[in-house]
Amino acid sequence: MKEISGKCFFFGFVLCSLFFQSALMASDFEEYCPSFGPLVTKESRRVVAFSESGMISAIDVQDRYKGAYHLQFITMEPSSLFLPVLLHADMVFYVHTGKGTVTWVGDDGTDDSLDVEKGDIYKLEQGTVFYIHSHPDPTRERLRIHAIFDTQEAFVGAYSNLSDLVCGFDDKVLQMGFRVSEEAIQTIKGVEKPPSIVPFAAKNESDEVSTNWEERLLKAIIGSQKPLGMIYNNKKKKKTRAFNLLTTKHDVENCNGWSIAVTRKDFRALRGCDIGVFMVNLTKGSMMGPHWNPRGTEIAIAIHGQGMVQVVCPSVMAGDDDEPIKCENARFKVKEGDVFIVPRFHPMAQISFNNDSFVFVGFSTNVKRNHPQFLAGKWSVLRSIRKEILAMSFNVGNETVEELVGSQDDVEVDPNL
Amino acid sequence: MKEISGKCFFFGFVLCSLFFQSALMASDFEEYCPSFGPLVTKESRRVVAFSESGMISAIDVQDRYKGAYHLQFITMEPSSLFLPVLLHADMVFYVHTGKGTVTWVGDDGTDDSLDVEKGDIYKLEQGTVFYIHSHPDPTRERLRIHAIFDTQEAFVGAYSNLSDLVCGFDDKVLQMGFRVSEEAIQTIKGVEKPPSIVPFAAKNESDEVSTNWEERLLKAIIGSQKPLGMIYNNKKKKKTRAFNLLTTKHDVENCNGWSIAVTRKDFRALRGCDIGVFMVNLTKGSMMGPHWNPRGTEIAIAIHGQGMVQVVCPSVMAGDDDEPIKCENARFKVKEGDVFIVPRFHPMAQISFNNDSFVFVGFSTNVKRNHPQFLAGKWSVLRSIRKEILAMSFNVGNETVEELVGSQDDVEVDPNL
Amino acid sequence: MKEISGKCFFFGFVLCSLFFQSALMASDFEEYCPSFGPLVTKESRRVVAFSESGMISAIDVQDRYKGAYHLQFITMEPSSLFLPVLLHADMVFYVHTGKGTVTWVGDDGTDDSLDVEKGDIYKLEQGTVFYIHSHPDPTRERLRIHAIFDTQEAFVGAYSNLSDLVCGFDDKVLQMGFRVSEEAIQTIKGVEKPPSIVPFAAKNESDEVSTNWEERLLKAIIGSQKPLGMIYNNKKKKKTRAFNLLTTKHDVENCNGWSIAVTRKDFRALRGCDIGVFMVNLTKGSMMGPHWNPRGTEIAIAIHGQGMVQVVCPSVMAGDDDEPIKCENARFKVKEGDVFIVPRFHPMAQISFNNDSFVFVGFSTNVKRNHPQFLAGKWSVLRSIRKEILAMSFNVGNETVEELVGSQDDVEVDPNL
Repeated sequence: MKEISGKCFFFGFVLCSLFFQSALMASDFEEYCPSFGPLVTKESRRVVAFSESGMISAIDVQDRYKGAYHLQFITMEPSSLFLPVLLHADMVFYVHTGKGTVTWVGDDGTDDSLDVEKGDIYKLEQGTVFYIHSHPDPTRERLRIHAIFDTQEAFVGAYSNLSDLVCGFDDKVLQMGFRVSEEAIQTIKGVEKPPSIVPFAAKNESDEVSTNWEERLLKAIIGSQKPLGMIYNNKKKKKTRAFNLLTTKHDVENCNGWSIAVTRKDFRALRGCDIGVFMVNLTKGSMMGPHWNPRGTEIAIAIHGQGMVQVVCPSVMAGDDDEPIKCENARFKVKEGDVFIVPRFHPMAQISFNNDSFVFVGFSTNVKRNHPQFLAGKWSVLRSIRKEILAMSFNVGNETVEELVGSQDDVEVDPNL
Repeated sequence: MKEISGKCFFFGFVLCSLFFQSALMASDFEEYCPSFGPLVTKESRRVVAFSESGMISAIDVQDRYKGAYHLQFITMEPSSLFLPVLLHADMVFYVHTGKGTVTWVGDDGTDDSLDVEKGDIYKLEQGTVFYIHSHPDPTRERLRIHAIFDTQEAFVGAYSNLSDLVCGFDDKVLQMGFRVSEEAIQTIKGVEKPPSIVPFAAKNESDEVSTNWEERLLKAIIGSQKPLGMIYNNKKKKKTRAFNLLTTKHDVENCNGWSIAVTRKDFRALRGCDIGVFMVNLTKGSMMGPHWNPRGTEIAIAIHGQGMVQVVCPSVMAGDDDEPIKCENARFKVKEGDVFIVPRFHPMAQISFNNDSFVFVGFSTNVKRNHPQFLAGKWSVLRSIRKEILAMSFNVGNETVEELVGSQDDVEVDPNL
Repeated sequence: MKEISGKCFFFGFVLCSLFFQSALMASDFEEYCPSFGPLVTKESRRVVAFSESGMISAIDVQDRYKGAYHLQFITMEPSSLFLPVLLHADMVFYVHTGKGTVTWVGDDGTDDSLDVEKGDIYKLEQGTVFYIHSHPDPTRERLRIHAIFDTQEAFVGAYSNLSDLVCGFDDKVLQMGFRVSEEAIQTIKGVEKPPSIVPFAAKNESDEVSTNWEERLLKAIIGSQKPLGMIYNNKKKKKTRAFNLLTTKHDVENCNGWSIAVTRKDFRALRGCDIGVFMVNLTKGSMMGPHWNPRGTEIAIAIHGQGMVQVVCPSVMAGDDDEPIKCENARFKVKEGDVFIVPRFHPMAQISFNNDSFVFVGFSTNVKRNHPQFLAGKWSVLRSIRKEILAMSFNVGNETVEELVGSQDDVEVDPNL
């Protein structure tokens, strides 16, 4: 049986634009809640690094189920270098624009590099040291990366830079530890700490293999088995590849848009952490019909256009008298760069406007094998319940229920996967 | 080797009634602590739903080890329907009285139904949508179900009803999503929300298979592989059965009572969650001798008669000066409907009175392979320790120790399992 | 491929004593932070038990990643008995001095005993009842044991003694439960509770097998399968052995010292919990060069000599405005009996003084397969990064970087494992 479930993270669109006369205009949805939990606007991001070569901004998200997630938005000019950092948490990233190369060394001695471009996703493990350099072509778009860090265990931030890891030690310890002169230590400690992103002129590939450095690269981490003489260009190893959300066959595609979802079942590199990635592209005047995620919280970033998002609070059994649970329905407009969060089991709908498509990429927490549950459409969970019982659930007659769930046989859904 | 351990959740009773002259009377145990943590009286349950067709009351329990548990007591008149809800948490339930049918659809597309009666237990997974209808015979007892929900991850309650999942959306979203008229939406939104339990007249079985509805029932959830033409009565599938605590062979049975314990090793349906189920039936004037649960907290509901429960606080190493740990011995009387909680490692004893049996059913958290540790009786853990060392442990002479643990060779325990 | 990683918990020393003229004297490091988190002095331990036969002191550690750890320092005179206790948490222990025997009964019915001596480590599971008796020879050193308890789930302390488990019950319950006279109960309850450690005169081995007690020893716990007639000296079972940190081949050894690390991959008894054990022995004027633990927090006890410890705070991304994260570099002197804690990812260095060796034994939390990451030395992670990029990371020239990482080809590291 073809393993569809992993690929069917999203499955089903509701055809809505051609059906209704009252077109959805952005102005219909001015009423939104800028300070409400589900929405974190682009403007409210926190700038954590800024230089001529680039910028990093960040937000922190609590999903009240599993813990804390830290998002970073990294922008790099061409010919820039995101200086090496040590990851304190697993990191999954999406390349929004541009091209570059990610290079890393794992804490088990594995080292690798990966050329990335728009649409690529990848995951790096906690304990890894990595750096990124952007493509040198000045006519290219900036390299923009959206990254999520599973920070529930990292109370001192998502990563550290090398300078901080070293320079915190006493001069004497550094002299003894690195067996260098006091002057060298003074130099290292005396300079101004570099920004997170700096200009970087890439070398020729021949230069990369010529130094002793690269030979020792493969043994740099304790436990490495490889002999000293092995050269950097290790022919035996298969080239590491990212997963591209834009070029991989979509899970669902029709005239109203497309979607794709990736879990560790689809992409090996995602193994070892609970985060999945998805992308939804709604053409103008379309909607991702009411549905909920039964497995995890969704953290989505709008990457093109605008849209309207509705999040419904599932019914709450009267909470503890001491601790009443607050949860409210929300509807808000989302624009490029905004982040919206929908907790597990909360029904949601996303709608594009009539003048442009609405595209968002997102991370889903606690993903194993996930089947989003649709309320409407051919695959609606409501259709699995007897009509009479549905009628009682809504306290309406059978005819109303028939109308509610009956008219969706011809929803345009492409089941081919 | 026969796998006894899983079935030996409780093993051993102490023969006590015929041995002592001073009979245990309810009046001996008036002194109890009504507000103490271990006891939650029937009267202190919170009513969360009430209608002519039934009632739901609830309590919340913190066990300080693993998290939060939510208990619900569902009472349904004959010919009633517990309207479909979406589970936010795993649910294990026990049928206290009556008969009915539980029907559900899982988030992976599986659908099933189960006829239940007094003594049955079953488990439904988080993400499942289910409903219950009680047997139509008006002369029958009400259908009463005790359920526990593993709510540590569900901050918006144990479940949601369908009406709340749908009606929170804007009219326009519902119109577009369900492709229905504005009038239909107005109808659905305009009516009074139904109560959790409503009257329900069951249909003929032939009616159940005749509509298109039931054909699509099997494919209602995304990812389902089954063809459109499959009928509802899916012959190939084995009939799902509950586990009955009353009719299954008891783990232990003698003139003083019986007990049974069920974990996922005994009942497949319990897989995927950490909750086990047990039942203890003490004949009049009997006792479940001092013992502790080494694996999990026990949450027990008295379902017949009354009894006395003692819970001893294990010794506490002087806690942090900042955070002294408070833990007190407790003894309290339990009557039908009361709930008592005994945390892991806390020694406990339950005693019935001289005028009636005392029966309680319970849920045990964090159960894997569990061996309750008895202090007294043939299987007492004390008997595994050298006499001299025991004497030093209690600071008494060998004779006293000999008396304490020596006279139990003839405890009537039925080892046949 | 030989599984080195498990054994390579520490790998690499920095040769420093002979290289520098300014010798490290204890007086160079008077500046330390007595109240800083990383250091818990011997004097600040909490005495939890004291008698003529021995003493128990304790400290509690929070590592902000995984939870709470409780450490106990048990000292027993020769011919003493640490009275039986019920473990509420997994316990890993190290024998610092002396000899003795640990005897236990698991909650699954297994019973065993283990002769222990200086350098031994072992693990006992939560739910186990165990006791320890020290070797009778009065000329021997005291039996000193350092133990760590994974108490994140045990809110009522790491263990309970038998007396507390029994004596909390009402007299009537005890009479009925143990089927003993009121006088026996009065005796047991009336005496003064014994201290945790008492004098103990060991019996002859022949005495140990002659009583009925030992025959029933094997069936004392529910679920035991063994027939009543089996004698105590169970010939079929292989003798249980501890793992000795002092006599097992060291992972690393050179003129500057040695180290060893043990995880569950190296020692079967450590399975089932996340705690590993390590020991480092620095000869005088040596250093464990700057490194971090990528997997867990390290909780180390100085067992010989003194040393200086530096802990560097990894760089912190600007935390929430609401919750700024405080983390400071620390340097402090450690003497025998002090405990120092280094959280995961925090770079650290340990240095011995010029007049004596510095030895510490420690527990590492959350250990799976661990590769400590060195900043300096042949195996430095810095050497895996291109020179130009390192230079930019430190904002220095290539020559300085070359000096920093280039001069370590001849570090004396023994790669033979």
